Amino acid sequence: MTRSFSQSLAEFAAASGHPAESALTVARLSALDWLAVGRAGAPEPVSEMTRTMALTEAGAEQAGIFGAAGRFPARAAALVNGTTSHALDYDDTHFAHIGHPSVAVFPAALAMAELNGRSLPETVEAALIGMEMSIRVGLWLGRSHYQTGFHQTATAGAFGATAAAGRLAGLDAAAMQHALGLAATRAAGLKVEFGTMGKPYNAGIAAATGVEAALLCAKGFVANPDALEAPFGFGATHHGAGNVETALAGLGDEWLFETVSHKFHACCHGLHAALEAARSLDIAGPEIAEIAVRTHPRWMSVCNQPSPTTGLGAKFSYRTVLAMTALGYDTAQLDSYSERTCADPRLVELREKVAVREDDGLSETQAHLSVLRRDGVRLEAEHDLLAPLSISERETRIRQKAAALIGPDTAATCWNILNNDVPAGEFAALLRP
Amino acid sequence: MTRSFSQSLAEFAAASGHPAESALTVARLSALDWLAVGRAGAPEPVSEMTRTMALTEAGAEQAGIFGAAGRFPARAAALVNGTTSHALDYDDTHFAHIGHPSVAVFPAALAMAELNGRSLPETVEAALIGMEMSIRVGLWLGRSHYQTGFHQTATAGAFGATAAAGRLAGLDAAAMQHALGLAATRAAGLKVEFGTMGKPYNAGIAAATGVEAALLCAKGFVANPDALEAPFGFGATHHGAGNVETALAGLGDEWLFETVSHKFHACCHGLHAALEAARSLDIAGPEIAEIAVRTHPRWMSVCNQPSPTTGLGAKFSYRTVLAMTALGYDTAQLDSYSERTCADPRLVELREKVAVREDDGLSETQAHLSVLRRDGVRLEAEHDLLAPLSISERETRIRQKAAALIGPDTAATCWNILNNDVPAGEFAALLRP
Repeated sequence: MTRSFSQSLAEFAAASGHPAESALTVARLSALDWLAVGRAGAPEPVSEMTRTMALTEAGAEQAGIFGAAGRFPARAAALVNGTTSHALDYDDTHFAHIGHPSVAVFPAALAMAELNGRSLPETVEAALIGMEMSIRVGLWLGRSHYQTGFHQTATAGAFGATAAAGRLAGLDAAAMQHALGLAATRAAGLKVEFGTMGKPYNAGIAAATGVEAALLCAKGFVANPDALEAPFGFGATHHGAGNVETALAGLGDEWLFETVSHKFHACCHGLHAALEAARSLDIAGPEIAEIAVRTHPRWMSVCNQPSPTTGLGAKFSYRTVLAMTALGYDTAQLDSYSERTCADPRLVELREKVAVREDDGLSETQAHLSVLRRDGVRLEAEHDLLAPLSISERETRIRQKAAALIGPDTAATCWNILNNDVPAGEFAALLRP
Repeated sequence: MTRSFSQSLAEFAAASGHPAESALTVARLSALDWLAVGRAGAPEPVSEMTRTMALTEAGAEQAGIFGAAGRFPARAAALVNGTTSHALDYDDTHFAHIGHPSVAVFPAALAMAELNGRSLPETVEAALIGMEMSIRVGLWLGRSHYQTGFHQTATAGAFGATAAAGRLAGLDAAAMQHALGLAATRAAGLKVEFGTMGKPYNAGIAAATGVEAALLCAKGFVANPDALEAPFGFGATHHGAGNVETALAGLGDEWLFETVSHKFHACCHGLHAALEAARSLDIAGPEIAEIAVRTHPRWMSVCNQPSPTTGLGAKFSYRTVLAMTALGYDTAQLDSYSERTCADPRLVELREKVAVREDDGLSETQAHLSVLRRDGVRLEAEHDLLAPLSISERETRIRQKAAALIGPDTAATCWNILNNDVPAGEFAALLRP
């Protein structure tokens, strides 16, 4: 008998084998990145609101949360941590399905691991499998789903969170399939919330859905086990393309998660390619006579504020962030973007030398930079965010980013823990300072 | 400036005026009905599983639940009570939008009322406004939404639950609009779960969504306030027809909720019209020579088991339930449907005299009955479930049903409380024996 789509996914999620070591390494790095951006996002108003709800509800001491002492029911912890880690929009992205895998999955995995006393390696493994599930389900749903208005981070993410939480709840393949079927009637999240608190919250609801589905199906909950692909199921109702072959190709052998992108600058994504190009030239402010940036036309209306005066404005300004880079500001650090930076006389002078032009020969992930030095030498660089990053460079950059966000000591401690066989709770203890 | 659709809904939900007394009376009757079916549903496995989750999570003592002592966080109570009250599929139905209004809305209203120390009349009023919201949003979404595969009880119901909970959280119209906008990214529920535990659970998630949206927006949560009707919003993504005029016609003056249908027999809906017709003839078993039923062809494959031997089978058998009625079994009572009933020699003899025929001249809500008495007299009756019920007859029937489910004393106490200005907690105290 042939397997149903959901059965294939459930068997993958519940399988006893271990993922490839290279994929696990990227997952460990994403765990460090997730912890750092989550801690940095804890003071955001949306994080505080969901945290306050959890603190008020209180309850069984099952799992830790960002920004507060104590432990909370796993479902609540997942909601808080998903929302908090996506609050700054500084977490990882996977372009194959256009979603943020870690913010939906790590909160579900960690909460369930703490509840069940699992080890950190088991947790990272389950999270990797969950994030791979998000990407695969996202590919199955396809562009039609995303373009209609669904937020893949939330929708595909709910299935990833369910896989991770279900694995750590010890579900066998049959129960896992019911959990995915239950997630199908719970998964939700719209892009129309972008620009509001609803966006990070979407990540939180995906994480909470995963925990809830795992908890209930561990008790024998019976859902429609093929609710994803059934007629009138999740795909049919949610404008899914139903790309089964694409979604299942190489499942269990190839790890699409390995090509996840991390953000290395705490500003609008449209600025990142130019910043990476600038970084490769390694030029210092006083040497510069002029800088010319070329970028995809789309970004001109998004992040080309010429002379912002606020930290938020700086995050949407080519001229400002390029001048910041040349002057040695750490663009990975949140408080580099400030009124004070915008008013720095060296920066005000330098950004007048930056010219931004659109170029429809470039993709949205590409930028071209041309720098004329005072000594007459012209330097050029181009960067594509889709260019693969070596594992060692990825490690260096993520550890630098984490150090910028949570301090070098905590970042080092966290990375050390992630490479050892410790209880998941030791990692969870780092959720707050 | 013209109001947006969401703004009109939010202003309706937050308005300080009071609904029509006739609508409030029907809402009070639905409250009694809801409490009775919820208590009767508490032993069901799906109820026990969600209840166990709430008991394990524990937490702040905010609101009561069906089937267990103690109080629980309002979000958890709403999830448990929504699921439990829909577990038997014995709750009310509104045919205009094809949904079960009470099971999504009362749990949200009651939990929020208990949390905020509100009175029972305020709670019923908020629930009525919430149920009217479910129906109006359901009409706005239209048949296309339902036929694609969405479960209106869950989707439209989430907005109704939000309106009720938001009102009892004291949200003004602006905050209410954000709460509806937040519900738009959280609302979910598929018909593909019918026949599984996922169906009652869909009602629970709608109720929990309402409480969550109200709690967060009471703290200032910012969502997209027009997420229902915005381009790429809930309607656009969820195959909504967008019938704005139908949805808003008479809003605040006319109460569509008044035409809600209650179930008076604890069996498949397809049997109800025939049972009502039989009831109108008032015939006793020994007098009967033969019974001929005509029904819509659809029901022939759904509920025409000729000679079932189990309680579940009896719930899907014209011959059995008509014989039960003639022999004086109370078809409103759950334990009337049993192996013992099926084996009753009088019943076995009588059901051989019942002939069931399809008739495509009848609608799905109609049935025709022709009874030949032993004395040669032929009696005929026809019933349509859409026929309006007078308020006094509705009261009589619902009180009888409640008495059958929770005992005459508790039913009487509950109805008395519902007609007095007591704290909502007094009603909540009746959630368990």
